[in-house]
Amino acid sequence: MSENDSLGLEGVFVEKDLPLLIRRQGMADWCDGVVRILDRRALPHEERYVDCESVDQVAVCIEDMVIQGAFSLSIAAGYGLALAANEPGSESLTRLQAAAGRLKKTRPTGLALHRMLAACMVAAEEALAAGESPTQAILATVDRGAVALARQGYETGRIACELLPDNATILTHCFPDRSYAYMLVEAKRTGKTLRVIASETRPYLQGARLTSFCAQQVGVEVNVITDGMGGFLMRRGEIDAFVTAADRVCMDGTVCNKVGTYQYALAAQANGLPYYVLRQSGPDVESADEAGVEVEFRDGEEVVNIGGTRIAPSGVEGLYPAFDITPASLVTKIITDRGAFLAPEIASYVDAPPFVTDAVV
Amino acid sequence: MSENDSLGLEGVFVEKDLPLLIRRQGMADWCDGVVRILDRRALPHEERYVDCESVDQVAVCIEDMVIQGAFSLSIAAGYGLALAANEPGSESLTRLQAAAGRLKKTRPTGLALHRMLAACMVAAEEALAAGESPTQAILATVDRGAVALARQGYETGRIACELLPDNATILTHCFPDRSYAYMLVEAKRTGKTLRVIASETRPYLQGARLTSFCAQQVGVEVNVITDGMGGFLMRRGEIDAFVTAADRVCMDGTVCNKVGTYQYALAAQANGLPYYVLRQSGPDVESADEAGVEVEFRDGEEVVNIGGTRIAPSGVEGLYPAFDITPASLVTKIITDRGAFLAPEIASYVDAPPFVTDAVV
Repeated sequence: MSENDSLGLEGVFVEKDLPLLIRRQGMADWCDGVVRILDRRALPHEERYVDCESVDQVAVCIEDMVIQGAFSLSIAAGYGLALAANEPGSESLTRLQAAAGRLKKTRPTGLALHRMLAACMVAAEEALAAGESPTQAILATVDRGAVALARQGYETGRIACELLPDNATILTHCFPDRSYAYMLVEAKRTGKTLRVIASETRPYLQGARLTSFCAQQVGVEVNVITDGMGGFLMRRGEIDAFVTAADRVCMDGTVCNKVGTYQYALAAQANGLPYYVLRQSGPDVESADEAGVEVEFRDGEEVVNIGGTRIAPSGVEGLYPAFDITPASLVTKIITDRGAFLAPEIASYVDAPPFVTDAVV
Repeated sequence: MSENDSLGLEGVFVEKDLPLLIRRQGMADWCDGVVRILDRRALPHEERYVDCESVDQVAVCIEDMVIQGAFSLSIAAGYGLALAANEPGSESLTRLQAAAGRLKKTRPTGLALHRMLAACMVAAEEALAAGESPTQAILATVDRGAVALARQGYETGRIACELLPDNATILTHCFPDRSYAYMLVEAKRTGKTLRVIASETRPYLQGARLTSFCAQQVGVEVNVITDGMGGFLMRRGEIDAFVTAADRVCMDGTVCNKVGTYQYALAAQANGLPYYVLRQSGPDVESADEAGVEVEFRDGEEVVNIGGTRIAPSGVEGLYPAFDITPASLVTKIITDRGAFLAPEIASYVDAPPFVTDAVV
């Protein structure tokens, strides 16, 4: 953290008591002119950090999945821009714009990333016009954004925790990031017992590696299953709710999330179970519906290789749609910092009373 | 093969032109007093065989998944019993019974295995009573069983192929064994173009390793996906039918198959796609409905380790239900050697005209 070391949750949580992945240090941190990023690829076995001294190093970390999660990587990108501003001779706006362009290119459709960089550029521009340090202006913007994210995440997790009955077993898919982590710590804080079944989430195994790690750190019982097992456990009556994050929520309640989510949403509905989507900052006002969502296909080689070993015959290619689309009809509630909405009513988030007024992303 | 080297499909296929996994050599074979078993664990990268000289070696091969598939392993077990009969001093029925007991223990609920061993024991007993070789009697029984399996498998595959439109893309899960392989070779033979999407089937990866390998050998286009992706591809309109085998079909049409099947069956129904179950020898007359099916839970360590590397944090355990249950309402047709049945009508298989009269398992 740079100057402002506030977590934004004073009086509720102490940062060192939170699971690593929602501490600043578990995302990206500014350490005396260096951006230090937790290498999530090495988790859960090793806590390793990558120190970046240039914009390009930060961009490569995002591209190589050293850091993931739309909001977490936007913090890394913001600090990356501060690195550019901190270089000698970087009072030039043109150089800062080029740096922001490099960072945006890491996730061309990453809304939080683009908003973070836009806010940082405005702050830098104002600082330069006022003869002040653009680096400090950018750092203050990122820090403010991070605090708002923590507060929104906690509020979202708190509402989710409230919706879940005591002794509930939750099926999750992928790593549902800070709202999920706050949901677990809030359950601990209020004496509610939750149990997590983490679907491993092939090919990148975020569920097995990150979701279970986070639950374990909070002290919540967790088991890992493969991506084909959740439906069966629902049918056996062993699951009480399906809970995920969302990479994007459209204004009509359509949910875009890690591939595998749709199948579980179908299974939840078939078995009369609620599906709760954690989306702390609400819908994407720029996405009316599914038509505007282009699902990213990644390199199929990531599917047919595990840990450097090919699992399919040579010559057989993998397919890797990275996300899938779940229609609003399969979603019970979309939980945000402004409350829990019925999926088809999520557009009313926009007009609901803001929970934070200083959100950056 | 022992004495009778008939494939049972003369005039239609030459064994050497079939994919390895449905050749005798791709299951288990009797080679001059040794049972030679293809090591499926080494596929698709290596064609390796295990030569067994004792009943216990064959049993361990079944336990260690050197060979898998209810019917294929029953052939291995039958030859294993012949090994016991072939030992000096094995005219004693008691010793043969002990050997059969050891083999049955490898899959306590394996119906085909138990039937194969029972048939072999009857043949051995008759041979001993007549002063003939029990070894030859057992070998003849296994060979007869293998021929019947090939003919039933081909008929089932032929009917499945007929049901599929030209240029159909099929989603499969796990390795649907010989009926699937015959479906593909029949499509080739009759000039129908099929395409296969093989769901990898974690944790044992039968889809990535065996299903894709089989399609590749037949010359059918195949891609591999993870177990969470099939529903998304169905929703995008990229799949025409979901096709699996079944470990067991109950008399009411309930299907028990590799875990992950149920989720795909739900997705197929939600997207208006047919789900075809290949079950060459029809329902299990001893299973009225789901109540009689106990789903096997295997060691959770198989889920949280991939290729010897732990993917979850130390201390986090996996859950491994090996099969799941799909109700008849989600199944379009159950395809057998006696025709394609509506799932709730599968009990009528029993009274339908037999396709083979010399089935052993």
